[in-house]
Amino acid sequence: AKTYKIAVIPGDGIGKEVTPWAQKALEKAAQGVADFEYEHFDLGAERYLRDGAILPEEEEERIKANDAILLGAVGDPRIKAGILERGLLLKLRFDLDQYVNLRPSKLYKGVTSPLANPGDIDFVVVREGTEGLYCGAGGAVRRGTPQEVATEVSINTAYGVERVVRYAFKLAMKRRKHVTLVHKKNVLINAGDMWQRIVDKVAEEYPEVSHDYLHIDATTIFLVSDPSRFDVILTDNLFGDIITDEAGAVVGGVGYSASGCINASDEYPSMFEPIHGSAPDIAGQNKANPTAAILSAAMLLEHLGFDDAAKKIHAAVEADIAELGSTVRSTDEVGRDILARI
Amino acid sequence: AKTYKIAVIPGDGIGKEVTPWAQKALEKAAQGVADFEYEHFDLGAERYLRDGAILPEEEEERIKANDAILLGAVGDPRIKAGILERGLLLKLRFDLDQYVNLRPSKLYKGVTSPLANPGDIDFVVVREGTEGLYCGAGGAVRRGTPQEVATEVSINTAYGVERVVRYAFKLAMKRRKHVTLVHKKNVLINAGDMWQRIVDKVAEEYPEVSHDYLHIDATTIFLVSDPSRFDVILTDNLFGDIITDEAGAVVGGVGYSASGCINASDEYPSMFEPIHGSAPDIAGQNKANPTAAILSAAMLLEHLGFDDAAKKIHAAVEADIAELGSTVRSTDEVGRDILARI
Ligand SMILES: CC(C)[C@H](C(=O)O)[C@@H](O)C(=O)O
Ligand SMILES: CC(C)[C@H](C(=O)O)[C@@H](O)C(=O)O
Repeated sequence: AKTYKIAVIPGDGIGKEVTPWAQKALEKAAQGVADFEYEHFDLGAERYLRDGAILPEEEEERIKANDAILLGAVGDPRIKAGILERGLLLKLRFDLDQYVNLRPSKLYKGVTSPLANPGDIDFVVVREGTEGLYCGAGGAVRRGTPQEVATEVSINTAYGVERVVRYAFKLAMKRRKHVTLVHKKNVLINAGDMWQRIVDKVAEEYPEVSHDYLHIDATTIFLVSDPSRFDVILTDNLFGDIITDEAGAVVGGVGYSASGCINASDEYPSMFEPIHGSAPDIAGQNKANPTAAILSAAMLLEHLGFDDAAKKIHAAVEADIAELGSTVRSTDEVGRDILARI
Repeated sequence: AKTYKIAVIPGDGIGKEVTPWAQKALEKAAQGVADFEYEHFDLGAERYLRDGAILPEEEEERIKANDAILLGAVGDPRIKAGILERGLLLKLRFDLDQYVNLRPSKLYKGVTSPLANPGDIDFVVVREGTEGLYCGAGGAVRRGTPQEVATEVSINTAYGVERVVRYAFKLAMKRRKHVTLVHKKNVLINAGDMWQRIVDKVAEEYPEVSHDYLHIDATTIFLVSDPSRFDVILTDNLFGDIITDEAGAVVGGVGYSASGCINASDEYPSMFEPIHGSAPDIAGQNKANPTAAILSAAMLLEHLGFDDAAKKIHAAVEADIAELGSTVRSTDEVGRDILARI
């Protein structure tokens, strides 16, 4: 069995509690087919408060030398919003060119959706990960005065859009063969027009895949009124951020949603994380649900080509939720229960 | 009774079917206290297809000379996305400096929410209406080539933000005294930081009003998992667009949601419209629900200071929905039923 090098960044809050379970699930599911060697990185709020470091270059280089990354969560109320998010999480997504942010939403049997009639929810959001309003382009003049002007610039390139569009259509071929582009092209006419043109062009190469378009505002309606209509949702960085949280809520909570930040050309490692945050309110109490982190291990395995091992995790999670989904359990209990089924 | 001049722009699709009911409700509710003189404007898709005109200057000047505007809906699948939206609807919002886009969300008794346990939903979104990503700042180079770059620029000014923040706090004083700022300040640090600073500053003048902050992504979760927590939501132009549609879905459909584009300094007329669109799929079939349009007439009356007349409409709508909300009725039937109760 080949050995894979995994960078582990537990990060802050509950990230530290759930990440060990992702590692255990990884090992058990891949037993006999792959081994894992971990390199731990002490990055996040505590490190920053201790020595001011967010993501030192030397550590980033070592992260890059791994085959994949497992991330817990980043964020701490003691630190001003944006510092860790932009200095660590987004910096990794951008520097490691993780241009596909893959976010499946599935309503598991046994989970209670907040919707009265959720239907059969099973879609994937393909969110662009390296452009748009997340570039950090923007500034302010006359800060703090009545004349202050603050700007944010969304930068979108045909290069960046086309590669993620291709990924979405390829993915749709393995699923129910439908892609929905989500944007706001009636207002953001420059970026929206480019996205639509590139989708139309790439779609010609995939005659079996149907595609349609929805404005972001209308999408938030359908996610509540008819979420089972979606198969692959393709969208930009900010809209993807917004609808994947709504989608997480609709499938019964972000505790069941994992995500992958994919470098689809394999030049740099891809990164796998639960979509929930560091949840300072319940951190350190052995209360956080490790299911999303465990599912992120399954995404990591799929990405490395171990589909059968990934399926073992999915089956274990599905069985666990179906049987015990509504039972109040500690982090460790859920972790042990799922592990026992892998 | 004083006579008010109302510009009526029915627009496209179902806009033409629901707007007459808004006018009838206006007249009946204000009987004896105010009279209305209508000036009709033939603007929207048909006019554009006929003679290429979207919003001729001379007509815009005549619109400006009115005391308020009733708008139906704008949009037609035959016309490229953005042309009418930006040339007519957004142009009016910007030129008439309608900096408050006021969007109440209320779950009426008798309406079925898609949520299993919706709770008591009654909040108002105060959406900024004249800045942000809606400015039309942005462009593209090398259009149609693999080197294309498209940008969208969000412009935010302390002047524009402060006035809408003040409006939100004033409004909160008349309600449950809580303001939630919604932004994405961990990523959009320039604009987000300015919004937060201005909110904190204005909040000092309103010691009775509590306020908190939520990221836009977290907001989409709470709108599904706990919508009754909100009182006044304060946010920018794009985030406001997104969450008011989700909110509309959560209270049982955009058919019950009206909105006001308010020029709070009364220099230009304010504009009242249902938040639903032109719905080409059901246009011309006497199927559209005129309730949102009728509620926009109530908002118009409130804006002109006729609170009692507005209350008559609200009471009629509430009674109608409580009794007949689940009955399938035509546009005219719903209109007549509500009118009879005013
Ligand atoms: C923490 C934040 C910067 C991040 C984002 O906006 O992408 C998060 O919300 C997510 O969705 O992964
Ligand atoms: C039609 C469109 C330009 C408009 C907007 O984005 O503001 C609409 O969605 C709305 O919410 O009034």
